[in-house]
Amino acid sequence: MFPERLAQVQGAVGAALDEAIARYPAGSLRDAMAYAATGGKRLRAFLVLESAALFGVADALPAATAVEALHAYSLVHDDMPCMDDDDLRRGLPTVHVKWDEATAVLAGDALQTLAFALCTAPALGPHRIELVAALAEASGAGGMVHGQALDIAAETAAVPLSLAEITRLQAGKTGALISFAAEAGAILAGADRAPLAAYARALGLAFQIADDILDVEGSEQAAGKRLHKDAAAGKATFVSLLGLAGAKQRAAELVAEAEAALAPYGEKAETLRDAARYVIARDK
Amino acid sequence: MFPERLAQVQGAVGAALDEAIARYPAGSLRDAMAYAATGGKRLRAFLVLESAALFGVADALPAATAVEALHAYSLVHDDMPCMDDDDLRRGLPTVHVKWDEATAVLAGDALQTLAFALCTAPALGPHRIELVAALAEASGAGGMVHGQALDIAAETAAVPLSLAEITRLQAGKTGALISFAAEAGAILAGADRAPLAAYARALGLAFQIADDILDVEGSEQAAGKRLHKDAAAGKATFVSLLGLAGAKQRAAELVAEAEAALAPYGEKAETLRDAARYVIARDK
Repeated sequence: MFPERLAQVQGAVGAALDEAIARYPAGSLRDAMAYAATGGKRLRAFLVLESAALFGVADALPAATAVEALHAYSLVHDDMPCMDDDDLRRGLPTVHVKWDEATAVLAGDALQTLAFALCTAPALGPHRIELVAALAEASGAGGMVHGQALDIAAETAAVPLSLAEITRLQAGKTGALISFAAEAGAILAGADRAPLAAYARALGLAFQIADDILDVEGSEQAAGKRLHKDAAAGKATFVSLLGLAGAKQRAAELVAEAEAALAPYGEKAETLRDAARYVIARDK
Repeated sequence: MFPERLAQVQGAVGAALDEAIARYPAGSLRDAMAYAATGGKRLRAFLVLESAALFGVADALPAATAVEALHAYSLVHDDMPCMDDDDLRRGLPTVHVKWDEATAVLAGDALQTLAFALCTAPALGPHRIELVAALAEASGAGGMVHGQALDIAAETAAVPLSLAEITRLQAGKTGALISFAAEAGAILAGADRAPLAAYARALGLAFQIADDILDVEGSEQAAGKRLHKDAAAGKATFVSLLGLAGAKQRAAELVAEAEAALAPYGEKAETLRDAARYVIARDK
């Protein structure tokens, strides 16, 4: 049931992003924003919409769209030559390759702004100011951008990172935004965020371990991005630290942990449990 | 009375920015953010606090701090080699010179996020979600970033921009955030924004014309940034289009217009009127 739901989310969020971006003045900035916001798994949007459904929050689409705009901005900047220097993303040339670095800086900047704009949609109801605060907390210098900075620093570090350090890096770089997404429904409902926070912590870590496994075992064609970069760069990953079998074992444990955290929601959370099983089985 | 008030604002906002940034994890990202957020005229913060005072909004400091964090982010990214390629800002090396380009991308990104975080401060009251929306509107792909993109495009354009085009560019690049700042008090009070919008439109344009005059007549030491770049690059400016005397005349007219727009607020708006007279007399 997860793949069907994800396909629905992809359609709805893709259309909402296109519509939001189409409101800006025409030009290469707008074109680059639309290009960068196209495609992707939309896992974060799915988490927003499913967590909202748990609490009967009717229209969480602007929040789901916001988290994907935020994620798209982070990818555009992360792919730049001064950062990870990637030329391929979602199977297509990255923004600075297709346009130029200035356009990549500005399109990323404006996608971040759009994410916050979307969180102010009146449809999101009276708790949307807390949503803005949570998105800023998750994505800023104490969350995602902090993780990015640790990642960049690790590339020039004399010794590879330890398991504790790489876990902390991941908690910022990918974990914080996944946690925001999973907690968004509870935030909008003014409900307790703790069970979803526990789910998201385990899910986010399993997601990153699966990413490291994919970097070793995956196909670039399926993934739509360059792989095997970590080993080539001598970077510490969950695979280099735990071994391939150990990483798979750890990911499976985390999925069980994520599923267990959803106990308070019973049957209603079945699609979220299914999602946890999916993140370690994916090929992109 | 404006210089005294501005000095107060500089102290209060500088301390608030330091305090907000100090909450993030230690490291070069945080150091670069603090560095980029230091100094500056704080004209935008002044406008937030003075417009708030017009409506009796008690604690607008987080909003004043937010607009300066947003402005600092835009300068860090704008100074990068792929953008304006500036090595000097506020009398010091720019962030990518002192650290590196990756740090400049990330510090700018995180300063933008901080700006939105600050707008969620409960002290700002029940209208702060509209403040978030207005900041996103002013700073995104329909406002400031749109202006930046037009500015970059103008550098490689075959013919210099016309007066109408350069006015539109300025309205985005510097005008939108100045307007946000001047209207912030009305937004937080849920009051009519029209008089302050008219004031800010004239003030923002006068500010940019003064900047172009400064680029021709100013001293780099006083300005704390590189000057004479526009003429060297053959860029159209208000001075190249109107002549030096014509530009000064137009700026003076705009200041009179800005002062007149404040009529509904009577004596209470005297410091804002004083500010308008200041922006065309400044040397930095």
